[in-house]
Amino acid sequence: MHRLNTRDPGFERAFRRLVSDRRESDEDVARDVEVILADVRNRGDAALAELTERFDGHVLATDADWSLSPEACREAFDALKPDLRAALELAATRIRAYHEAQRPTDRDETDELGVRMGARWTAVDAAGLYVPGGRAAYPSSLLMNAIPAKVAGVERLVVVTPANKGQVNPLVLAAAHLAGVDEVWRIGGAQAVAALAYGTQRIRPVDVVVGPGNAWVAEAKRQLYGVVGIDMVAGPSEILLIADGRNDPDWTAADLLSQAEHDPAAQSILITDDAVFADTVADRIGVELAMLPTARVASESWNAHGTIIEVANLDEAPALANALAAEHVQIATDDPEALFRKIRHAGSVFLGRMTPEAVGDYVAGPNHVLPTGRRARFSSGLSVLDFMKRTSFIQLDEAALHAVGPAAVELADAEGLGAHARSIQVRLGQ
Amino acid sequence: MHRLNTRDPGFERAFRRLVSDRRESDEDVARDVEVILADVRNRGDAALAELTERFDGHVLATDADWSLSPEACREAFDALKPDLRAALELAATRIRAYHEAQRPTDRDETDELGVRMGARWTAVDAAGLYVPGGRAAYPSSLLMNAIPAKVAGVERLVVVTPANKGQVNPLVLAAAHLAGVDEVWRIGGAQAVAALAYGTQRIRPVDVVVGPGNAWVAEAKRQLYGVVGIDMVAGPSEILLIADGRNDPDWTAADLLSQAEHDPAAQSILITDDAVFADTVADRIGVELAMLPTARVASESWNAHGTIIEVANLDEAPALANALAAEHVQIATDDPEALFRKIRHAGSVFLGRMTPEAVGDYVAGPNHVLPTGRRARFSSGLSVLDFMKRTSFIQLDEAALHAVGPAAVELADAEGLGAHARSIQVRLGQ
Repeated sequence: MHRLNTRDPGFERAFRRLVSDRRESDEDVARDVEVILADVRNRGDAALAELTERFDGHVLATDADWSLSPEACREAFDALKPDLRAALELAATRIRAYHEAQRPTDRDETDELGVRMGARWTAVDAAGLYVPGGRAAYPSSLLMNAIPAKVAGVERLVVVTPANKGQVNPLVLAAAHLAGVDEVWRIGGAQAVAALAYGTQRIRPVDVVVGPGNAWVAEAKRQLYGVVGIDMVAGPSEILLIADGRNDPDWTAADLLSQAEHDPAAQSILITDDAVFADTVADRIGVELAMLPTARVASESWNAHGTIIEVANLDEAPALANALAAEHVQIATDDPEALFRKIRHAGSVFLGRMTPEAVGDYVAGPNHVLPTGRRARFSSGLSVLDFMKRTSFIQLDEAALHAVGPAAVELADAEGLGAHARSIQVRLGQ
Repeated sequence: MHRLNTRDPGFERAFRRLVSDRRESDEDVARDVEVILADVRNRGDAALAELTERFDGHVLATDADWSLSPEACREAFDALKPDLRAALELAATRIRAYHEAQRPTDRDETDELGVRMGARWTAVDAAGLYVPGGRAAYPSSLLMNAIPAKVAGVERLVVVTPANKGQVNPLVLAAAHLAGVDEVWRIGGAQAVAALAYGTQRIRPVDVVVGPGNAWVAEAKRQLYGVVGIDMVAGPSEILLIADGRNDPDWTAADLLSQAEHDPAAQSILITDDAVFADTVADRIGVELAMLPTARVASESWNAHGTIIEVANLDEAPALANALAAEHVQIATDDPEALFRKIRHAGSVFLGRMTPEAVGDYVAGPNHVLPTGRRARFSSGLSVLDFMKRTSFIQLDEAALHAVGPAAVELADAEGLGAHARSIQVRLGQ
């Protein structure tokens, strides 16, 4: 864990190091991924089957090996114990309600010159959702990715997920049923992303690919960006807690560890104006870790990346927060709004002492897929818009063309684009 | 030029070939671009100066070599002849008005359980705009890229443009003045994109890079995607014209050539239900070409990629249009709306006989930066949203946490995330 103090002479340099700390994998998988994408593009299902057997130990022979039926998803859902089923349903209902209000509105206006202009939003035809295998196969993540797609109006929503020796997490299947997923394929890795983008004999291509994954999956999405739309290149999770000394240190310790437990590369940062509180929180993290089933991952993250920044005054926090542009910012003060007003760059902000970030991961409603690695400077959490696109339109009548056409001819001529000018002039009788 | 007919037995195959026709450069510049990006990242201005001298023949020594002042831009604007200045001003005014209505609205709601949820939009701090050198330095393109950024509220808008032997197109500078560009740097290529993304000693980094460019620029943007936001990987322009036989063939010929003249790789497609009209348009294209200053490029494009598709009935057109997902779709019929209703995938649609696409390039108002290469299936034209990002927020009070917290604990436990559960349980007194 790192300890910084804005009053220290070395603070600027230490803080710059914190801001530029790249916790993302530098593993160079680009060349390997290139080869896999080309292989799936050229050989389709045959390549998929070979790669899946090699990487996942799963043989794709029969239809049932390839994909799981909607019935299998429904059965997984029906088999949930009642409390868990109710929790998943509450989450789905709240996520759906929040995202329904994200649907954009169309435009259709005619101005005083008679120029009609507008924009019409439509959903993509098909979307693919990557669900990681193993420990990171989270049903909440499936809901957060799938529900916005369905709310957008996507007709065909396809899940791909690696099936280690054929196994897929039943909670993920239950969530797929609840979210209305249309197809579930037991494939993973870069090869699954390639199948979604290019299509194969069995799998029809999609238009957008979303969802988290390892370095290979992330690189495959990056390389296929443009062939399909993608959500974002995602990195390890992070939280920035801004807290005064009047917080329960146990709460703060638990909040910091709730990001640390995701990934050894995750980062938890506390900004506080109270040195005693800072010390107590650091102590309590040790105590909490001892009780935590995820202690190994959480302590690795906290030791390597955890940071406590002591400030003279919490008014210094927004500038630090903007430089860090964290995925999650939690403000545990009596008047969180005052600080929030000055924070421009953050994925999602959790206001007040009774709003632990974890509540946003599951049941609050807003999306938990958020920009990491300082990308909140320029990008947003997943939304219905990631599954839609806008078609603008223009309509002129003769009078409108006479009003604005000559200016367009002037500009086309200045740009040396004769046919552009001509297409207007012939209509103006010139 | 290719001639297809939906009644021909070979149509399906020929149309599939048309849909999958990749007109984008396959030039493999990835490795070279990697080297340039790393060089600028490591050595900053020194690398920029060397690369600029090598590629553009422009020596970067004094401040004046590096950048052009706002005064230089104002002087270029003041020197415009009156008609051209008025045309640029009309374009800027109309583009600004259309994009101002694109500003998104914030959300702030509290539901019946007391969970407050919302989203707040803010502009990125700084945006970079690549303006190609030479023939493709279009003032209209500068307006279309710069005005949405300024409308979004971007404080610092930076233009980079290669200055062949020091020269920058004065029309571009005039447009930069009109659009309120803050900095103009005389650098180009992948090295300029790297400077925008990483920053150098002279050039502060930006958050988003937009604008068209050659294969090197496009590849640099693709590789830096994630370090900064980018608009889209852009390919050659394309138009799909849907026209019945009651159009003036000269108008239609001019419309087809207005895209063809952009680039030998551009593509113009006519869908019509009238064989005689199709023949006449093909003839008139020959006549028009003879008069056209851009004939060399336009005829190269038309000969290689131009296509006329004869349909039995224009009702067949929307399905073909959706498969092609063209950048521009022009519908020249009496009731264009009837066909437009069935077109889901298109960058921008131009309705009716008096709406040549060229009017949208300059003065209509909607953006002319649009998805190419079938990307209208999943992406949209440039907008104010490309320069903004959304921060979601959540606030719970104690009652709200008691209402939804237990479900979150249930899910966290099911996902094996103990600290997530714990951060809620400690607050519920569990």
